[in-house]
Amino acid sequence: MDKFSITPALLRGAQPLVSLELCEALLQNDARWPWIVLVPRRAGAKEIEHLSRADRARLIEEEVAAGAAVRAMGSALGRAVEKLNIAALGNVTPQLHIHAVGRRSDDEAWPGPVWGVGLARAYEAQALEIAKEAALGVLNGWSVKG
Amino acid sequence: MDKFSITPALLRGAQPLVSLELCEALLQNDARWPWIVLVPRRAGAKEIEHLSRADRARLIEEEVAAGAAVRAMGSALGRAVEKLNIAALGNVTPQLHIHAVGRRSDDEAWPGPVWGVGLARAYEAQALEIAKEAALGVLNGWSVKG
Repeated sequence: MDKFSITPALLRGAQPLVSLELCEALLQNDARWPWIVLVPRRAGAKEIEHLSRADRARLIEEEVAAGAAVRAMGSALGRAVEKLNIAALGNVTPQLHIHAVGRRSDDEAWPGPVWGVGLARAYEAQALEIAKEAALGVLNGWSVKG
Repeated sequence: MDKFSITPALLRGAQPLVSLELCEALLQNDARWPWIVLVPRRAGAKEIEHLSRADRARLIEEEVAAGAAVRAMGSALGRAVEKLNIAALGNVTPQLHIHAVGRRSDDEAWPGPVWGVGLARAYEAQALEIAKEAALGVLNGWSVKG
C-alpha cells in the first residue's frame, strides 16, 4: 500500500491543526463557518467501509471531538454553533475525509448544506488565531482522553 | 426520557425498511438516488455526541451497512453507485438521522450535495420493489452478522 499523505486538494484552503489517533485534523480557512476536516491516515481509503472496524469506531469518536472543537471555535468567535453537520462526501476529492461544520440558523447557507455555496472567505489573522486556539484546546485534550 | 418514535417529517417521503440493532432504516422514496436514512432508536438524540460510545461504534457499522445497501439498490436498478455520501445534517429535521446516498457522476446534483436539490421523484411500483428487495438483501444479512 502506498504511503499516506494528504492530497493537495484538501490542503488548499485549510491548514493542519493536529494529529489525532486516527486522523489528521485540518482547520478549513473559511470564516463563514467553524469547520474542521478529518483525514484518516490510511493510504488509499476513499469510503468509510475501507477502514477496519477498529478504525471506524475510532473515527466516530474523532467526529465527536471535531464537533466539540467547532463548537468551541464558534463560541470563541462569538457565534455559538446551533447544529453540527458531520459528513463524508468526497464527490470532488476522493481521499476519505470527514467534514465537521458548525451551523447557525443565520448562516448564509442555512438550512441547506454548505458545500459548493459561494466562495470561501479567509479568516482575518486575529480571528484565525482565536479559532485555532479554541479548536486545539478541545482536540489536544481529546487525544489524551481518547 | 420520552419514548422513541420517528418524527413524521422523516417518514414523509420515506418508508420503513427494517430495524437494525441501533437504527430504524428507511428507504427514501426518491428514484433519483438510492438513499437510505438511519434513525437511531434513542429518544431525544439530535447529534452523534448524544449517543453513548457503544451506540456510536454501532452507528458507524450501520452506516457501512446502509452504504452497502444503497450500492445494492443502485446495481439492481442498473445504475451502479460510484461514491457514497454519508451525512448527519439535521438542519431541517432535528431528530438525529444519517443519510446514506449513492452517487454517480451522471446524477442530477453531481458533484454537489443532494439535499435541497429539485423535487423528489417517487419510484414506480416495480422499481420500488426492486430497490427494497436489494436493500433488504443486504440489511437483513447485516443484522445477523453485526
